[in-house]
Amino acid sequence: MTVNYDYLRRERLGMPEAVLCAGKDMVSLNSIVAELAARPDHPVLFTRMEAGQLGGLDPEHRAALDYDALSSTAVLHGHLPARPGNVAVVTAGTSDLRVAMEAARTLHFTGVSHKVYADIGVAGLWRLTERIEEISQCDVIIVVAGMDAALASVIGGLVGKCVIGVPTSVGYGVAADGTTALNAMLASCGQGVMVTNIDNGFGAACAAIRVLNSLMIKESSV
Amino acid sequence: MTVNYDYLRRERLGMPEAVLCAGKDMVSLNSIVAELAARPDHPVLFTRMEAGQLGGLDPEHRAALDYDALSSTAVLHGHLPARPGNVAVVTAGTSDLRVAMEAARTLHFTGVSHKVYADIGVAGLWRLTERIEEISQCDVIIVVAGMDAALASVIGGLVGKCVIGVPTSVGYGVAADGTTALNAMLASCGQGVMVTNIDNGFGAACAAIRVLNSLMIKESSV
Amino acid sequence: MTVNYDYLRRERLGMPEAVLCAGKDMVSLNSIVAELAARPDHPVLFTRMEAGQLGGLDPEHRAALDYDALSSTAVLHGHLPARPGNVAVVTAGTSDLRVAMEAARTLHFTGVSHKVYADIGVAGLWRLTERIEEISQCDVIIVVAGMDAALASVIGGLVGKCVIGVPTSVGYGVAADGTTALNAMLASCGQGVMVTNIDNGFGAACAAIRVLNSLMIKESSV
Amino acid sequence: MTVNYDYLRRERLGMPEAVLCAGKDMVSLNSIVAELAARPDHPVLFTRMEAGQLGGLDPEHRAALDYDALSSTAVLHGHLPARPGNVAVVTAGTSDLRVAMEAARTLHFTGVSHKVYADIGVAGLWRLTERIEEISQCDVIIVVAGMDAALASVIGGLVGKCVIGVPTSVGYGVAADGTTALNAMLASCGQGVMVTNIDNGFGAACAAIRVLNSLMIKESSV
Amino acid sequence: MTVNYDYLRRERLGMPEAVLCAGKDMVSLNSIVAELAARPDHPVLFTRMEAGQLGGLDPEHRAALDYDALSSTAVLHGHLPARPGNVAVVTAGTSDLRVAMEAARTLHFTGVSHKVYADIGVAGLWRLTERIEEISQCDVIIVVAGMDAALASVIGGLVGKCVIGVPTSVGYGVAADGTTALNAMLASCGQGVMVTNIDNGFGAACAAIRVLNSLMIKESSV
Amino acid sequence: MTVNYDYLRRERLGMPEAVLCAGKDMVSLNSIVAELAARPDHPVLFTRMEAGQLGGLDPEHRAALDYDALSSTAVLHGHLPARPGNVAVVTAGTSDLRVAMEAARTLHFTGVSHKVYADIGVAGLWRLTERIEEISQCDVIIVVAGMDAALASVIGGLVGKCVIGVPTSVGYGVAADGTTALNAMLASCGQGVMVTNIDNGFGAACAAIRVLNSLMIKESSV
Amino acid sequence: MTVNYDYLRRERLGMPEAVLCAGKDMVSLNSIVAELAARPDHPVLFTRMEAGQLGGLDPEHRAALDYDALSSTAVLHGHLPARPGNVAVVTAGTSDLRVAMEAARTLHFTGVSHKVYADIGVAGLWRLTERIEEISQCDVIIVVAGMDAALASVIGGLVGKCVIGVPTSVGYGVAADGTTALNAMLASCGQGVMVTNIDNGFGAACAAIRVLNSLMIKESSV
Amino acid sequence: MTVNYDYLRRERLGMPEAVLCAGKDMVSLNSIVAELAARPDHPVLFTRMEAGQLGGLDPEHRAALDYDALSSTAVLHGHLPARPGNVAVVTAGTSDLRVAMEAARTLHFTGVSHKVYADIGVAGLWRLTERIEEISQCDVIIVVAGMDAALASVIGGLVGKCVIGVPTSVGYGVAADGTTALNAMLASCGQGVMVTNIDNGFGAACAAIRVLNSLMIKESSV
Repeated sequence: MTVNYDYLRRERLGMPEAVLCAGKDMVSLNSIVAELAARPDHPVLFTRMEAGQLGGLDPEHRAALDYDALSSTAVLHGHLPARPGNVAVVTAGTSDLRVAMEAARTLHFTGVSHKVYADIGVAGLWRLTERIEEISQCDVIIVVAGMDAALASVIGGLVGKCVIGVPTSVGYGVAADGTTALNAMLASCGQGVMVTNIDNGFGAACAAIRVLNSLMIKESSV
Repeated sequence: MTVNYDYLRRERLGMPEAVLCAGKDMVSLNSIVAELAARPDHPVLFTRMEAGQLGGLDPEHRAALDYDALSSTAVLHGHLPARPGNVAVVTAGTSDLRVAMEAARTLHFTGVSHKVYADIGVAGLWRLTERIEEISQCDVIIVVAGMDAALASVIGGLVGKCVIGVPTSVGYGVAADGTTALNAMLASCGQGVMVTNIDNGFGAACAAIRVLNSLMIKESSV
Repeated sequence: MTVNYDYLRRERLGMPEAVLCAGKDMVSLNSIVAELAARPDHPVLFTRMEAGQLGGLDPEHRAALDYDALSSTAVLHGHLPARPGNVAVVTAGTSDLRVAMEAARTLHFTGVSHKVYADIGVAGLWRLTERIEEISQCDVIIVVAGMDAALASVIGGLVGKCVIGVPTSVGYGVAADGTTALNAMLASCGQGVMVTNIDNGFGAACAAIRVLNSLMIKESSV
Repeated sequence: MTVNYDYLRRERLGMPEAVLCAGKDMVSLNSIVAELAARPDHPVLFTRMEAGQLGGLDPEHRAALDYDALSSTAVLHGHLPARPGNVAVVTAGTSDLRVAMEAARTLHFTGVSHKVYADIGVAGLWRLTERIEEISQCDVIIVVAGMDAALASVIGGLVGKCVIGVPTSVGYGVAADGTTALNAMLASCGQGVMVTNIDNGFGAACAAIRVLNSLMIKESSV
Repeated sequence: MTVNYDYLRRERLGMPEAVLCAGKDMVSLNSIVAELAARPDHPVLFTRMEAGQLGGLDPEHRAALDYDALSSTAVLHGHLPARPGNVAVVTAGTSDLRVAMEAARTLHFTGVSHKVYADIGVAGLWRLTERIEEISQCDVIIVVAGMDAALASVIGGLVGKCVIGVPTSVGYGVAADGTTALNAMLASCGQGVMVTNIDNGFGAACAAIRVLNSLMIKESSV
Repeated sequence: MTVNYDYLRRERLGMPEAVLCAGKDMVSLNSIVAELAARPDHPVLFTRMEAGQLGGLDPEHRAALDYDALSSTAVLHGHLPARPGNVAVVTAGTSDLRVAMEAARTLHFTGVSHKVYADIGVAGLWRLTERIEEISQCDVIIVVAGMDAALASVIGGLVGKCVIGVPTSVGYGVAADGTTALNAMLASCGQGVMVTNIDNGFGAACAAIRVLNSLMIKESSV
Repeated sequence: MTVNYDYLRRERLGMPEAVLCAGKDMVSLNSIVAELAARPDHPVLFTRMEAGQLGGLDPEHRAALDYDALSSTAVLHGHLPARPGNVAVVTAGTSDLRVAMEAARTLHFTGVSHKVYADIGVAGLWRLTERIEEISQCDVIIVVAGMDAALASVIGGLVGKCVIGVPTSVGYGVAADGTTALNAMLASCGQGVMVTNIDNGFGAACAAIRVLNSLMIKESSV
Repeated sequence: MTVNYDYLRRERLGMPEAVLCAGKDMVSLNSIVAELAARPDHPVLFTRMEAGQLGGLDPEHRAALDYDALSSTAVLHGHLPARPGNVAVVTAGTSDLRVAMEAARTLHFTGVSHKVYADIGVAGLWRLTERIEEISQCDVIIVVAGMDAALASVIGGLVGKCVIGVPTSVGYGVAADGTTALNAMLASCGQGVMVTNIDNGFGAACAAIRVLNSLMIKESSV
């Protein structure tokens, strides 16, 4: 079995090359890593790589990876050159950090400037009020929140720029699987808040990159 | 068929006598109204009485009812004497008024002082900020909100008194049946926010009365 | 009861002033329209206004509205001045037009240039192939699709700019309420596709405007 | 990364300071505990702390915690001073004890007098009948029940004070995740029963504290 | 198209001959009625026959039917001879009567003695206590209840005979479609309570007949 | 904490004394077992006792239990005396045996004669046809089936006695949690098939005992 | 707005040209019909055309349609030439006929020989046994069934040819929306039964045509 | 307990003999394997056999099995003789290989020629375009895809032969359990795409064999 990798994605779309490790058996994963390791001019991001999968890689390849445990991401062959635009990654609580860091690592890999604002959920509104001015300076705002995800609505009502909500599977009971946060963001009373899949920090970063792609083309044609 | 009415509820529980009209056929409903109309010392509240049901009542009984179309409630034999305590009924949007007025009518019927604060959803946070001081003076705060129901969390984070959330079936798509608002309130990051069934303004008023019942007994024993 | 309208939204957020009519009783709706009609310098968009609601308005106000039956939208006091940026609104099938036109009317109201590409679902892939070059020239692409919503994934794989998916409640059986299209878009294999609530053409247009807001500020600071 | 803790919650809301440990990685959790351990005048409650998390704490901090395995709670810097009011915590079965003890530990931490009445589900109605008189003397009644949660309805029909239902994820099949108990409590035929999230003993205690907050202010102003 | 009727059901199973009218178009329904009307020795029960369907029948057949509007049932060619056994049909509220009467009409058609006990929900426990002795004398007890359906659990805990729960779609919000009542009955803490489909009064009567069938054979062989 | 055991259940209801072990912590479970072990005249059945729980019991009590691993049941102080009536326990596949044996062990504990007919699902109809005559001689038929649970409908169409369906969580995909089997049995085209909770072999046996209770009283009064 | 019709579908896929009318507004629908009416060499099938939509068509076009009310289908410009292969369309009950006739009309339009076998559900197994020999002679068997959909499993266990299940939304309670029938067919114990969307008679006919397409090519190459 | 195996399935249906191991306890599984091992003329396929189950088999039987870890399948007594027809097994991503290989192993066991085309999801459309000509030469096309499953719709729009969709539980958030992929395939805009249960590679292979069964009989009668 040969890997059928989509090598042209970056050129075609201006999007990061990435491999979702979740659900891949070790034979397939080792075969993919081996093939990509042989292309040093081709930086790649691995997402949802469990510690067990990392441990099951061929040692030479494992050593070549820049692995981050909190976000379960790994980078091969370094990151892409810096590009214009900056993104705020905001979380409601500490438990949302795993997902926020997946977004941050993806932005870092792609060369996008960003800053993480953790723990500013609306249960203590003053924490948001203190930072909203700074957050609103960014081109794109990624809001990572679980449970009732009220933070997305409140920020959407305070800032007119692009707001991307990432619901998380943080919490228990009706919150446990992230569906409540997802639906609350979709039903948000903040007009025009956009949403990604549950826990999809990578997807939110890609969405932000899409926005910056539009923006860059626009700028360069000015 | 004889009606098997629970006449002792008010004495036993200090709760309003009420008849849920939804789902009742006209033969049963007319029979219930006739029996209750014969007991003038026994004020009764009818909830979820559709205009069609009102029209199908025997004319003499229909004339005896104080009917309110927005809340679909009707009162027979007047309301109960005034009692201590006051309640804030807050709504996120104009579409939540039907449910808020069901709560308000129930409180009015039971003799409880209350005030309705409409249209202060978090998408325009200044509308809430302007009124939160006044709202926080009440003994109990009923928050009526649909869609993402973020208002309940924000108020729960600003006020330490009893907050009762009533999710509404306002909106469309994932919001249409009120489940998103319900789950968002249950998963609220505002500690200790309590929740009733979807669109259950009557139940929220009863919950508030239960709180006042505890309070009154406490007071009288001071 | 006085309306508690958020008049500052446009100034604060650069977003369109809009009133969601769904779920509003005629007394409230007439009161809102009357208040807004008295402010001729304040263009407003009404969404989800059913023909029945239009008919129930005070005749003088009804006459002042520019109503569109297909999208169930109405405009009061004309649209906003033209602004930079252009948006493609793409639909998979003819039945998705209601929702696409809600997006188009919102964009038109806000002064944003746009074009509707109808009926290019992936079941006949050549219809998409013929137009993808033109579509990819736009700053933002709104994809309106029901059933399996495969169109969003395919476009997301062909274009690297901002793609906003609007799932629709078109179809029957498992497709009937739009949840399948919603989830398929959220789980899209096309990286970074963003999603709004089911049938939420208005929200998608607002999301596009948020992207253009980021873009405009960027441009003006060049 | 600095912790962004909401230190003012107790002063602002009269609610307990609490940290939800579920979903927190050990790096974040150790950092939070270290910061809080340095403030001995600031009692804190940790909820949902798994044995594994306790074991992963820095030994000096672990030793400082008063940990309870059944409720998965830990207390740092002792509990708050006693305050007026008393709460009944009632369970339908022995399996509901984990959740009931989370409520009881939260009340104890906050200085609220309370008593646990275990194992009085309605399948053996005499067990409830024997104790209902005593239970009805309390200011607030927390009912912890899984499966069909019928206990909440029956108590709601026998007592007119504040009844807070906590559905539990006890049981299997349709009962397994607690949704049936949750919905049964929300749909309760006992008027005005309020509900919290599934297994949310902490939230129920907070709700009870909110009721007592209203009550205390009331009393002090008498 | 010829009707392919299962004429041998009664002989084979000792169960009533019945035609479910819901979902049948008038051409098919008239053809079925015509065929059955020609067999006067063959009593048949029609269930879920809407008033509109009754009105659409050929006049001669319509006249031959004994129709009951509350239960939406019709009988053709009279009922079956009386047989041993008696059944209690118990309802929690007045709104459950439609379903209870479908069960009662089915029992009456099949010649089974029965009695309806309406309006004895657990919110007013004394109503049940007064009648439980009489109810427990019956061979089979059918409990018809919506919302939280707590009545089934309480009766199941008080009586050791066959208890058949029929959940109803009475109520609103989480109760609206009967799923909560269904699941609460399935998860009942009352051991060995059996359940039928939502609103299925006919099925509950058939289940009771199955129990009596076992019983009769047993008796006759004594 | 004292156990609040319902010792009168057998006398009151003629039902088996049983303790559901699932969800019970070892402290509570050991305390329950200790109390019951001290009452040798009081046979008790333990259900859903995992091997881990068995291992965690005090050794002297563990030795006193008659434990069966397949059904996860244990008996203390022997079984009850034989009583009239016999029950068929039928399974669609081998994977349904765990649940069927829970029913069989409960019947055995209660002194009820029964026989297990395994592996006669309708995919090979001849397996059912061969045994249906023998099965139909029993007083009550318990059908244990997962996936599409078609066996319950087919048997319900072939036998007129009491048929109790037990849906199982056997299978994967849409079958994985037993909901499909549950709903298929509830919607069964076989009239009057009754249903219990998913995997609830114990409940089905209790339901069968309820039927036999009615029957025995009837017989004794002949 | 011009219609963007996929005229090449028949040539490309050997599938019928069809227009789904559900969800289409009358302006769009009239425009589509007008365009297609101008191409007499191009037979087209309209599905899900409600009587109201038929009535809203331009009279000249309405007259040109061969409309069938039971299946809600219409044919324009006659049907396609006869082609090899034959299909059995089997229904469990009379209420499934609407869906079965949609399949039959689609097959007829496409020139495929077929026969409808109505009312042979497994509750009366003899009805199936009598016809199974004849049914098993067909190349493809479409099984149309609602509620528990047990018929698909039983036929799948008796015949080794291609069996296509069409779940229907017949019934009430858990059966009401067809999800139970859908899931039961997907979880069928009959190996290799394939399934279409709920009520999708048209899709099942198309699936049968796909099978015949494979078969015809195969034959012609013999 | 004797195994009640359906030995006649192959003769009766032309389908493979198979044992689903998931959910079977080791006692039952060893007993089944022992019985089948004694019939060397009877090739059997075991599906969903976990490594743990393989390890728990009697060593002599374990050695006789041809086990494949990726697909969790085992073959006993070799495969069946080659038969006409060929099948394409197509996957959207590498993570879908587990399910695709279950289909491939089933086809191989049954003697059906087939080829696996991995990793051709629509996010990189060129990967599909390159191979569609070759794929369309096969008699049956099995499409294995998770997440949005858009590949099934696109292939269904490009090829007119039998297309069988197998949704997989690959992905996270809304994709996690495969329901989104399942519903997207059922709602596919590609006419006549048929669907099996989630992750059911075995069922898809059986469905393909059913199609080939029809085809072979047809051919042999030419």
